[in-house]
Amino acid sequence: MTHFLFSPQLTPSSFLRIGQLSNVDLNEDIRELETELPRQHPNEIPHNEKLLSLKYESLDYDNSENQLFLEEERRINHTAFRTVEIKRWVICAMIGILTGLVACFIDIVVENLAGLKYRVVKGNIDKFTEKGGLSFSLLLWATLNASVVMVGSVIVAFIEPVAAGSGIPQIKCYLNGVKIPHVVRLKTLVIKVCGVILSVVGGLAVGKEGPMIHSGAVIAAGISQGRSTSLKRDFKIFEYFRRDTEKRDFVSAGAAAGVSAAFGAPVGGVLFSLEEGASFWNQFLTWRIFFASMISTFTLNSVLSVYHGNAWDLSSPGLINFGRFDNEKMGYTIQEIPIFIFMGVVGGILGALFNALNYWLTMFRIRYIHRPCLQVVEAMLVAAVTATVGFVMIYCSRDCQPIQGSTVAYPLQLFCADGEYNSMATAFFNTPEKSVVNLFHDPPGSYNPMTLGMFTLMYFFLACWTYGLTVSAGVFIPSLLIGAAWGRLFGISLSYLTKGSIWADPGKYALMGAAAQLGGIVRMTLSLTVIMMEATGNVTYGFPIMLVLMTAKIVGDYFVEGLYDMHIQLQSVPFLHWEAPVTSHSLTAREVMSAPVTCLRRIERVGTVVDILSDTSSNHNGFPVVESNPDATQVAGLRGLILRSQLIVLLKHKVFVERANLSLVQRRLKLKDFRDAYPRFPPIQSIHVSQDERECMIDLSEFMNPSPYTVPQEASLPRVFKLFRALGLRHLVVVDNRNEVVGMVTRKDLARYRLGKEGLEELSLAQT
Amino acid sequence: MTHFLFSPQLTPSSFLRIGQLSNVDLNEDIRELETELPRQHPNEIPHNEKLLSLKYESLDYDNSENQLFLEEERRINHTAFRTVEIKRWVICAMIGILTGLVACFIDIVVENLAGLKYRVVKGNIDKFTEKGGLSFSLLLWATLNASVVMVGSVIVAFIEPVAAGSGIPQIKCYLNGVKIPHVVRLKTLVIKVCGVILSVVGGLAVGKEGPMIHSGAVIAAGISQGRSTSLKRDFKIFEYFRRDTEKRDFVSAGAAAGVSAAFGAPVGGVLFSLEEGASFWNQFLTWRIFFASMISTFTLNSVLSVYHGNAWDLSSPGLINFGRFDNEKMGYTIQEIPIFIFMGVVGGILGALFNALNYWLTMFRIRYIHRPCLQVVEAMLVAAVTATVGFVMIYCSRDCQPIQGSTVAYPLQLFCADGEYNSMATAFFNTPEKSVVNLFHDPPGSYNPMTLGMFTLMYFFLACWTYGLTVSAGVFIPSLLIGAAWGRLFGISLSYLTKGSIWADPGKYALMGAAAQLGGIVRMTLSLTVIMMEATGNVTYGFPIMLVLMTAKIVGDYFVEGLYDMHIQLQSVPFLHWEAPVTSHSLTAREVMSAPVTCLRRIERVGTVVDILSDTSSNHNGFPVVESNPDATQVAGLRGLILRSQLIVLLKHKVFVERANLSLVQRRLKLKDFRDAYPRFPPIQSIHVSQDERECMIDLSEFMNPSPYTVPQEASLPRVFKLFRALGLRHLVVVDNRNEVVGMVTRKDLARYRLGKEGLEELSLAQT
Repeated sequence: MTHFLFSPQLTPSSFLRIGQLSNVDLNEDIRELETELPRQHPNEIPHNEKLLSLKYESLDYDNSENQLFLEEERRINHTAFRTVEIKRWVICAMIGILTGLVACFIDIVVENLAGLKYRVVKGNIDKFTEKGGLSFSLLLWATLNASVVMVGSVIVAFIEPVAAGSGIPQIKCYLNGVKIPHVVRLKTLVIKVCGVILSVVGGLAVGKEGPMIHSGAVIAAGISQGRSTSLKRDFKIFEYFRRDTEKRDFVSAGAAAGVSAAFGAPVGGVLFSLEEGASFWNQFLTWRIFFASMISTFTLNSVLSVYHGNAWDLSSPGLINFGRFDNEKMGYTIQEIPIFIFMGVVGGILGALFNALNYWLTMFRIRYIHRPCLQVVEAMLVAAVTATVGFVMIYCSRDCQPIQGSTVAYPLQLFCADGEYNSMATAFFNTPEKSVVNLFHDPPGSYNPMTLGMFTLMYFFLACWTYGLTVSAGVFIPSLLIGAAWGRLFGISLSYLTKGSIWADPGKYALMGAAAQLGGIVRMTLSLTVIMMEATGNVTYGFPIMLVLMTAKIVGDYFVEGLYDMHIQLQSVPFLHWEAPVTSHSLTAREVMSAPVTCLRRIERVGTVVDILSDTSSNHNGFPVVESNPDATQVAGLRGLILRSQLIVLLKHKVFVERANLSLVQRRLKLKDFRDAYPRFPPIQSIHVSQDERECMIDLSEFMNPSPYTVPQEASLPRVFKLFRALGLRHLVVVDNRNEVVGMVTRKDLARYRLGKEGLEELSLAQT
Repeated sequence: MTHFLFSPQLTPSSFLRIGQLSNVDLNEDIRELETELPRQHPNEIPHNEKLLSLKYESLDYDNSENQLFLEEERRINHTAFRTVEIKRWVICAMIGILTGLVACFIDIVVENLAGLKYRVVKGNIDKFTEKGGLSFSLLLWATLNASVVMVGSVIVAFIEPVAAGSGIPQIKCYLNGVKIPHVVRLKTLVIKVCGVILSVVGGLAVGKEGPMIHSGAVIAAGISQGRSTSLKRDFKIFEYFRRDTEKRDFVSAGAAAGVSAAFGAPVGGVLFSLEEGASFWNQFLTWRIFFASMISTFTLNSVLSVYHGNAWDLSSPGLINFGRFDNEKMGYTIQEIPIFIFMGVVGGILGALFNALNYWLTMFRIRYIHRPCLQVVEAMLVAAVTATVGFVMIYCSRDCQPIQGSTVAYPLQLFCADGEYNSMATAFFNTPEKSVVNLFHDPPGSYNPMTLGMFTLMYFFLACWTYGLTVSAGVFIPSLLIGAAWGRLFGISLSYLTKGSIWADPGKYALMGAAAQLGGIVRMTLSLTVIMMEATGNVTYGFPIMLVLMTAKIVGDYFVEGLYDMHIQLQSVPFLHWEAPVTSHSLTAREVMSAPVTCLRRIERVGTVVDILSDTSSNHNGFPVVESNPDATQVAGLRGLILRSQLIVLLKHKVFVERANLSLVQRRLKLKDFRDAYPRFPPIQSIHVSQDERECMIDLSEFMNPSPYTVPQEASLPRVFKLFRALGLRHLVVVDNRNEVVGMVTRKDLARYRLGKEGLEELSLAQT
């Protein structure tokens, strides 16, 4: 997660609080101040929450409805549309299948490698327990972990830094409409998959579930575009889908498929995608997303069933399965609901603490650990410390349990009597997924309270330290594990207090604790409830889980933001929330917009176009087009909107005519020419325009979008925001009463306003 | 459902097919033709699919952001917003609790009354079986049913016709943004609740689940507005929520709570509301809707648990519970998936047949059964026939099963040996909910194939005849029952064919058959899948249920539309689907819009306003406001938009000044004055304006929305549609390049274009 953030200095944050009346002049002062901000350190990235980076570009969910587009759409008849629709379904099925297969691959490799590691270490420990000299075992364990993690960290730090972390914040940004460089490349996927395997095998306090969401998104982007930049191959299929609108829809499906494969939660996956991304709920799209999710979990389930040898039983819907919570054995009663709510409060507080610690840690990393080598060293250090802590805890623990009837995979006897195993080892000497399930389902009495308490404490700090390392890994499972541990501890205490009431099953409280802790950290709402419900396979637990998550979110939000939102803010991403800040009705489009706007004339000199595009100080991506020769009877009103990318394609194909021969027809382009260049349009510097050509004229009528969305300058910020967000726009032109262009609203203009502790605040803009 | 449709003649349908190029002149001819259409039969309602009624008004999801509104919003600080937010949560909790309680009430009353009826009839049958003379029993049964249904039908037909049917089509329309008169009144709720109890007790082939959705919606509308027209009480609370935007959000929550209570499916409820209604997915709103749903099922569960005497076990999450489908006993394997898909095909075909039959029946009803008395007689006839068919089937059946170990509530011995009961009676002599569960869970061998076949056939026609009667009742349960019957039959055949393979459990196939049949009839997608998943309480069944529903929908759509959509079309409701017809890119706003538009000047003569509002031939609801005195330097561009309702309030409060004293300040109004009049603004005729007052001037600046959304006239229909639908607009002004008003797009202008079998078709408009 820290890969964007490697600037050692703090850029001065010049932000402004706005009261009831916003002072326009002051705003302009600020803007002037910003233009003076240093551009001499282009690699520096602000790491201050009060800044907004201008380096991120927006996706455009609005089709540029120019003549070419309309001609194509009009040519296509009903049957052809049906073919397109069928292609969409085929792509979704492929997304589901591939995501499922990737999840299987990760699961199987992790299981085998981790199994190998634990067997080796266990053999070594067993040997040295008798002979003495367990420090050799510790050394072996720590070295094994550190070397595995080193490989995982090296590939991330040196090859593809965007593959670090769980990828959920990046996917959140993408679905929100922000283009994060490299985020949906094939190379990222490969590094991500290898990285996550190595992190889990390396024994870090991480999970392999979060990264599945990112993986699904990459798979979706790759398949739907029918080509790969990393492979430099274009399969010449699915060309119709080469635009932001379609691509983003498929990426939603991919993210959902990832959630679905990770947790066996197809409905939860759909809700995740919608909660994070959907500008506009479309029934067909949602149904396709659901299809991809279902196929994904089904593929995983089938392949893993075959792999585990019981081919037809379909018992592994996700990478993690919480196991069966039976109503009869583990039902809850109404009296327990206040207890669950209390657990939600605890989860909220602990989650906030986790986030606050991680915030300081991230700030520290931004300042001091920004070189890849240092990042690798830190990852290795964490791996070694994790192993050491685990070893010491196991060594010091005297919690022995009978081995008979237990389901422990690698029972460590250590100093226990024969036929017994060390209970602390089930928590530390295991993949975190298995530890979670053990905490949920081991019969009462499998852990003593001391073990659980120590484990919670240690794992809390380890997980917090681990999140943000330069490795691919998720925070879901560690959060669940921490929560399950203290939840179980809570259940045991409760059972002790109530003198062993039958309803006080510790497994149930472990589940609620896990929900509370996870909710307190990530602060997801509906989707997380459904994911937890589906992972438990039990609908009745929905109500208490919802209450717990709701309480954890309310309590946690009182202190700090959610972990993902915090990291998104630290990266200064212009993220748009669901609604404009509630107290922003005092601002109007006039105050919010960027002005003046560089406009083009409908028939424009090529040289002017080139100069405007080459102007690095403005670097705009959309230009309003106005009438060429306004006279008294004609207002120079808005005629259309043209994008930088379109202009570049026009220049590249030399679509212009000499000024003397304006009557000549300029070269015709097809939509295909634009699609072929998508999404990585060449920079203007790479296009050579001769001095003669500069004097030619270019007619934009055919290529501009003649009906861009506009707002009058009196519209309030919430109104502008709503239009922008609902339609997923990239540019919104502000016009006056005569339809003349007075300004332009883009994502950064809206994202700049935020509700801070003391009312509305305005973030500063930074070029980097 | 037929209560809107009582016209005996067919209005001539004058619709037009549009090819690649739309002929504007032809369009205008049609419009002229329409204006000549008879207005002499105001009570006649078109009942032709190719018509669109103008009598339905739109809800306005867009706030009129005038000065008053902005001033209020600016006055409210952060804390006050938090209070509003808390109020929203409180309202949602109340919606959930009340919906749950209403569901409990229905359930308990139905159970007791139906129990009483079955005990009386069973006693009678038992008596006459020995003595001979069973025709008396038949008479008793039929008379009981007919009289109960008579009462149920009379209250619907004579007191509140909008309470007929399940109410789902009406709620779909409401959430889509169409105001159906009386649909969310308290009176409707009372009639609905009584009506549904009487229909179910009367033994009709109906369910009590569908009406819960309508009930939830009414409860939500009532609570959120803090007053009731039926009771003529205003509780002076929640006044902030008295506008279409807020009300519609709460109604979504109510509908979701209804689904949740009916099926124990809180997530399904949320998805239902979103699938039908959400213009724009908002995370906070969705979370609130989910909260209401959860509270609703939890309330139902708690109260029913207490009622059933096992207070804390929470085993009745919904009105219908499919019972537990255990993985171990009833899991499916991959080989069965093709079989499930085949069942989906069967369900699609049977569903289409059901809908087609019901379509003809509805047309027949529209023509010949439009008087309330006749409607009551028909309902009684159906009740008597249902009882008779049931009786004859039971009488003729020779399918005897041992009573031991079965779970039948009212075992009819009839001609079976002692210790045995008539198996046909478990299906017919029972509430449909119980029959469904029996078909799912009775052990293999409980029914013989002949029984199931006959039952399916008979119940299919009975259910089809029943849907559309003037009684309150739903079609969900009958559909499930038909499907469960043929599904079980299918399972038995399969088990016979495969020589009793263990995987061929008939209960599982009954479930799939039920899903297929229901999907084939109603054609819901994601929400239905989730509802079925939650009702079975088993997540693993999600994949096959999704496949079955998807297949049923694809196959069914090939023949006819879904039942609800069909009835919505027959009522000529201007319903907006998710997207514009795919081949409509050839149309632009210019061709779609209504023109010319009646505009008002910013400072307008009162007499002009009154005349415009009184003009019954236009009856517009929104008027663009233009500059008062355009001169050469100033274009008469659009300045704002004002609504009929706002003008009426202004006139009522005499907000105008004499022409001579224009400098005087006119009376100030508060937002409260507008809210108090919401939603039933008085007609213009009720407002007296004297001759002197007619000459006064009214300044609209303060009250108009100064930033209405606009589109240029070149925008294509899909683009206009997207803006309109995404923001839930009621009026969209079309402007030219100089920002002058050239037309107005409203719901009917968009709903008019539909994709027919032979391409794009344009529906005619009818005044009634």
